[in-house]
Amino acid sequence: MRVTELYGAMRGELRRVEDLLEEEVASREPALQEASLYLLRAGGKRLRPLVVLVSGRFGPRRDTEALVRAAAALEMIHMATLVHDDVIDRSDTRRGRPTVKAAWGDQLALYTGDFLFARALELLSEMEDRRLHEVTAWAIARMCQGELEQMHDLYRIDQPLFRYYRRIRQKTALLMAVSCLVGARAAEADEETARALWRFGGHLGMAFQIVDDVLDLVGDEAVMGKPVGSDLLQGNLTLPVLFALRGRTSGDEAASRRLAGRIHPGMSQEDAAEVVRAVAESGGIDEARRVAERYVTWARRDLAALPDGWAREALEAVLGFVTARDR
Amino acid sequence: MRVTELYGAMRGELRRVEDLLEEEVASREPALQEASLYLLRAGGKRLRPLVVLVSGRFGPRRDTEALVRAAAALEMIHMATLVHDDVIDRSDTRRGRPTVKAAWGDQLALYTGDFLFARALELLSEMEDRRLHEVTAWAIARMCQGELEQMHDLYRIDQPLFRYYRRIRQKTALLMAVSCLVGARAAEADEETARALWRFGGHLGMAFQIVDDVLDLVGDEAVMGKPVGSDLLQGNLTLPVLFALRGRTSGDEAASRRLAGRIHPGMSQEDAAEVVRAVAESGGIDEARRVAERYVTWARRDLAALPDGWAREALEAVLGFVTARDR
Repeated sequence: MRVTELYGAMRGELRRVEDLLEEEVASREPALQEASLYLLRAGGKRLRPLVVLVSGRFGPRRDTEALVRAAAALEMIHMATLVHDDVIDRSDTRRGRPTVKAAWGDQLALYTGDFLFARALELLSEMEDRRLHEVTAWAIARMCQGELEQMHDLYRIDQPLFRYYRRIRQKTALLMAVSCLVGARAAEADEETARALWRFGGHLGMAFQIVDDVLDLVGDEAVMGKPVGSDLLQGNLTLPVLFALRGRTSGDEAASRRLAGRIHPGMSQEDAAEVVRAVAESGGIDEARRVAERYVTWARRDLAALPDGWAREALEAVLGFVTARDR
Repeated sequence: MRVTELYGAMRGELRRVEDLLEEEVASREPALQEASLYLLRAGGKRLRPLVVLVSGRFGPRRDTEALVRAAAALEMIHMATLVHDDVIDRSDTRRGRPTVKAAWGDQLALYTGDFLFARALELLSEMEDRRLHEVTAWAIARMCQGELEQMHDLYRIDQPLFRYYRRIRQKTALLMAVSCLVGARAAEADEETARALWRFGGHLGMAFQIVDDVLDLVGDEAVMGKPVGSDLLQGNLTLPVLFALRGRTSGDEAASRRLAGRIHPGMSQEDAAEVVRAVAESGGIDEARRVAERYVTWARRDLAALPDGWAREALEAVLGFVTARDR
């Protein structure tokens, strides 16, 4: 199955998610509503809602209403983290458009994020299964921890690799795992299926983030909607850079020392471009792609534990899309 | 009953709340843990936990464990709003000590707030009654809205009074009402009792915030731990100021026009001091105190609907304390 087919098949449900999102961000406070709608209409892949909806096909219960609600909640949490991250990163553009923070300022961005978090959890608390609420709140706490670990490690050229893996697990993979789990539980899937979906979501999320980090270094600025190397410029050292710094892929220690010398707070665009080039030459990007592939393999293994059928093919399509995408 | 007696009687349970708070903010991320513990140890009146615990005496079920958990969750939500408000207000001191934002920067303050929100909701989701989670998440969304309405109305000398009442209801009173409700529900109080407690909490919260706003204008800087008139300097026009601006209390229209002329972004400390003096002379402070008294009267009426006994006396003590305090 191609992912475009999947989006096509889910069009009706995704439309309902969009409608609910618009309803949920309605607020008497005009600036809040405006900023939330702006965020909403900036679009995005709606990957989390898609994953919730498809995971909801793995159980006996077909409660589309509940799935749509959960899907909207997960997207709102994702949106909330984006607004807050833009405040932190001082980002002025995302997906080629000004960020909420750039358009309305830090203050509105902060409360818009809080508002979206709260609304999302309110929406989830309407669901019967209390554990969904608990696991989501837990995942949000872990996401904050991940973001703070990232801040802690900015420009740290000697950080151990496990810190990178741990922070992307917290920042990205957990919410994807929660998306799968929430769908499974809403459909009252059996425990074994729910666990397999949880693991799949985690592996999918890891692959997704590594590919994202690779794209930040090799992507096309016009396609990505943000400048190449922007993670690097902010001091966020991602897997390809960490590989290059270790000289593990190139075996050229002198080159990795030169690389390390260029990475520092206030580095110029030229420095960053030079680092990007050196990372590519060192083989760091290819190595990172291989790691992403490994996560994809693990995710496929998780899928193999699930019942064969349309839903499983749909998740395979998502997995293929995540690794093949160019933005 | 005096409030000191009440704190004495609840010492054991409040101690358990403190212990749980310390446990809950534990994090592998050192900066996050440090900032959270710093916030925690800055103290405070622990009014919300107190109100949760006392409200929990109005039902047949005595589940101290659940009450302590709910009390800690409500205090964490309060702490989260304080950290985020400090980012917005650009405040460098609170309760006489540097704010998290001043000590660690905006970024850590932002994620510490998110982390505390998420942890609090995680804690609440362990409770059996799903509605608690829902009403709390709803209240948080309303608090954000209240904060944004406050931003919207900064320096607006012509704002209608209802906007003041509405924003303090959202910012402060709702969370107090939720504290009462959560206590009542955890104790499985009957519906009528729960509703009376909810109303009481709302009125208590309104009185509390108006007194707070009065104290900002007349309090002793050394006692308050923040400069007099700091709301005003930030453009937050509170009830006494709005009364004075209307000339309703003084009947002196020329004076209120002069007052209006002094209130603007970037006003000096001297301007602010002059406004504080003029507000006091206009009778605006006394009038605001009278409004607070009216809320206290309503809160007493709510209490009258509750069964007589120790718990009711305890809430009366809280009410007396809130209006008589000097910080």
